Amino acid sequence: MGEKVKIVEVGPRDGLQNEAKTLSVEDRAELIQKLIATGEKFLEGGSFVSPKAIPQMVDSEKVLEKISGSVLGSAATSASVDLSFLVPNEKGLERALEAKVKSIAIFTATSDSFTEKNIGMKVADSLKVFESVAKKAIQEKLRLRGYVSTAFGCPYEGSQKAEKVLEVTEKLLAMGCDEVSIGDTIGVAHPKQIEKVFSLLARKLGSQNFPHRIAGHFHDTRGMALLNIKTSLDLGLRTFDSSIGGLGGCPYAKGSSGNVATEEVVWSLEGLGFSTGISVEKLLEVAAWIESKIGRPLKSRLYLSRPLSGPNALYFES
Amino acid sequence: MGEKVKIVEVGPRDGLQNEAKTLSVEDRAELIQKLIATGEKFLEGGSFVSPKAIPQMVDSEKVLEKISGSVLGSAATSASVDLSFLVPNEKGLERALEAKVKSIAIFTATSDSFTEKNIGMKVADSLKVFESVAKKAIQEKLRLRGYVSTAFGCPYEGSQKAEKVLEVTEKLLAMGCDEVSIGDTIGVAHPKQIEKVFSLLARKLGSQNFPHRIAGHFHDTRGMALLNIKTSLDLGLRTFDSSIGGLGGCPYAKGSSGNVATEEVVWSLEGLGFSTGISVEKLLEVAAWIESKIGRPLKSRLYLSRPLSGPNALYFES
Repeated sequence: MGEKVKIVEVGPRDGLQNEAKTLSVEDRAELIQKLIATGEKFLEGGSFVSPKAIPQMVDSEKVLEKISGSVLGSAATSASVDLSFLVPNEKGLERALEAKVKSIAIFTATSDSFTEKNIGMKVADSLKVFESVAKKAIQEKLRLRGYVSTAFGCPYEGSQKAEKVLEVTEKLLAMGCDEVSIGDTIGVAHPKQIEKVFSLLARKLGSQNFPHRIAGHFHDTRGMALLNIKTSLDLGLRTFDSSIGGLGGCPYAKGSSGNVATEEVVWSLEGLGFSTGISVEKLLEVAAWIESKIGRPLKSRLYLSRPLSGPNALYFES
Repeated sequence: MGEKVKIVEVGPRDGLQNEAKTLSVEDRAELIQKLIATGEKFLEGGSFVSPKAIPQMVDSEKVLEKISGSVLGSAATSASVDLSFLVPNEKGLERALEAKVKSIAIFTATSDSFTEKNIGMKVADSLKVFESVAKKAIQEKLRLRGYVSTAFGCPYEGSQKAEKVLEVTEKLLAMGCDEVSIGDTIGVAHPKQIEKVFSLLARKLGSQNFPHRIAGHFHDTRGMALLNIKTSLDLGLRTFDSSIGGLGGCPYAKGSSGNVATEEVVWSLEGLGFSTGISVEKLLEVAAWIESKIGRPLKSRLYLSRPLSGPNALYFES
C-alpha cells in the first residue's frame, strides 16, 4: 500500500451544475450513493443556491433527505463520509442548517472581475459575507471548506498573482476553514505556475497548514491536469478535487474538458505508487451510468478506452 | 533557456497512416513543411510500404520529391533537419535508396502476436529481416532508427515483460540504430511500468546508450501520456515522439486518443522548464490546418481550448 492521497469528489455539485441537463433528485442521490460505494469518502453533494441562478442544484435538501432515507444512507451520513454542500451566503447557511448538513463549503476567488460576474461582488466583499457565514457555521459545529477560484488565471483578467492566492487562502483559513481548495477554474495552469503558487503557500502558511489543509483543484481544459497533480504531489500536496467522468465541462471554452476525471486521477495516483482507497473499476461503472443520464458523451480518456476485461484489461504489468 | 528535449514528429507517418482519409501528396508535403516551420527538426516523412497494405502512405517518394523541389526544400532536406522514412523490408529499402532519403526507421515489437498480425512474422524473424536491411542501410550511410512496439502492453497478449523490451532494444542497437523508440502502442502504460522498463534499460544498456539513444513513444489512450513523459524525464530520458494534433487515433480502441499531441508535449515541457525550440503557437496553427484536411475533429485538449489571444491567451503567469 502506497502513501495515502485524499480525493474530494466534486462531480455531484461542481460537475452537475455545469451540465446542460438538470438531473432529478433521485438521480443525484443515486450518483452520490454509487460514488460512496466506489470507496470515495469526501464528496460535494449539492449547493444551497437559488434555483433561478443554478437550476441544476434545485432541491439539494431533498437529495440529502433521499440519501439519509436509503439503505446506503447510514454510510453516506455517517462520520466516515464527509458529504459537503456549497453555501453562497447567510440564506444558504440557513437552508444547510435546516437540512442538518454537517459540512459546508464557501467560495471566493483571486479575481474581482470573476467574483463580480459570479456572485455580484468583489473578492473583499465576498470575504466579508463569508466571515459571518463561517462564524455561525463554526458555532453550529459544521465542518468548513473554502475554495479559491481563478488561482492560476481568470477568464476576464488573465494572469493572477501568487501573492493574491496566498492572501485569500490565509483569510479563509483564519475564518476556520479546515481545508482550502486552490482552483485552476479555467484549466490554464502549467507546472511552473503550480510550483510558484504552492511553494509560496508552503513557505508562508506554516507546517500547521501546508500541505494538509490545502487541496489542488485542477481542470483538464488544456490536458495538463494530471501533470499539475504530479507537480503538486512533488511539492507535498496530498489532497485533490476531481469529478467522476470529468463531469462539468468548461463554461469558458466550449467543447473543452473541465474538471479532471476522478477515474483518471485515481488511476494515475495508483500508477505513481499512491493509494486512494477507491476502486477504478467501480468508478468506470459509475461513469457509464452517469453518462446515460446527462445526455452527452463523457470526455474522460480512461473512460473512453474502457479497459475492463480480456487482454485489454485495466491492469498491465511489465 | 531550459535543458533541451528532442521531439520526434511522427504525425506525417504514424499519425496519417491511422487516419481514415488518405491525403494527397501535396497535402502531406505541405504538412511536413509547415511542421518544420514551427521549429521541428526530427520528423517521420512517410513509409515505403505497399500501398495495398497502407494506402495512406502511397507515393512517399513523391512527398519527398515535392519537399525537395519547394522553397522550404533546402531546409527540409538540409543536414539540420532529419526527415525519416519507415522501411518494412529489403524492397522498402530499395525504394528509400532510390528516393535518396538519408534516414530510415525499422520497426518490430515485443509481442509475437502483434508482429504476426502486423507484418506476418514473429519478432525473431522480423529481427532477421531487419538485420540485413540495417547492414545495407549502414553501408549506404543512412541514419537508422528503431521502434519497439507493444513495449508496455499488447492488444492480443496483454502484459509484456520489461526483459523482452531490453532484449529487442539491444538487438536494434547492435544492428546500428542510433536511436530506439520504446512504444506504448495501445496507450496502456502507467508510471510504475515506465519506471520498471526504463530503469532496466538504464542499468543494462550502459551510459553510451542510455538515455541519449532511447526515445519514449507514448499514446494518450488512457490520458496518461504526459504523466508518462514526466516520469521518463525524471528517469533521464530526453527524446519523445509525438504527433501534431494527436493525429492517428487508436486502432485498438475506437474513438479513443492515440499518439500524444505534439502541442501538448511541447507546452508541458515548457511548463516543466525544458526547452524544445518549437513554437506552440505555430503548432496550434498547423493543427487547425491539418484538421481541415483529415475530415474529423482533433482530440488534442490544448488545441480544443485554442488559447491564442485576449485574457485567455496561451501564456499565464502567477
